Amino acid sequence: MKNLFHDIPTELPEQAVEVLVETSGHRIERIVSQGHASPEGFWYDQDQNERVSVLKGAAKLRFDGDDEAVEMRPGDFVNIPTHKRHRVGWTTPDEPTIWLAVFYGG
Amino acid sequence: MKNLFHDIPTELPEQAVEVLVETSGHRIERIVSQGHASPEGFWYDQDQNERVSVLKGAAKLRFDGDDEAVEMRPGDFVNIPTHKRHRVGWTTPDEPTIWLAVFYGG
Repeated sequence: MKNLFHDIPTELPEQAVEVLVETSGHRIERIVSQGHASPEGFWYDQDQNERVSVLKGAAKLRFDGDDEAVEMRPGDFVNIPTHKRHRVGWTTPDEPTIWLAVFYGG
Repeated sequence: MKNLFHDIPTELPEQAVEVLVETSGHRIERIVSQGHASPEGFWYDQDQNERVSVLKGAAKLRFDGDDEAVEMRPGDFVNIPTHKRHRVGWTTPDEPTIWLAVFYGG
């Protein structure tokens, strides 16, 4: 995979996570979702900071304690500090949503 | 700036570099070019690794010692190891080229 928009799996029973770069304390992933959401009641609770952007598609991200989801469209990005609990509430069901996530520090 | 495709400067006498995240040993930048190229004979020679992608527009990246430039289109990315000398040979003159660069390690 040398292009973030290519090599999209045609079947996505689970989100497809590919690690593009990994060094000590630093990891870059491309994530492809299509209609995926985190299980009800599940929260990501990470030891690292995450800076994540949506490059294609759309998503709703939920933070624990917030009433409203954060809607993400292509180009939108958020910084998620260490241990800030969050989940994916929704991704586009009819086309792939492509995320670029950078994990660092922590 | 909360969207990588928004807030593009209308005049770009120089490339516009915005640091999105910076921690010790880790930096994420959005870079906007339009017709910019590195000066003839100039080479970037960096203490950190760089993983850079083109999100919009197009560019040609040159590596010292290579005969051919690497053409980059939206979604294309390359990993540039520490001290691998490189320069920007060309970017789209008629529209902005948007890069996302992650510097790490080194």
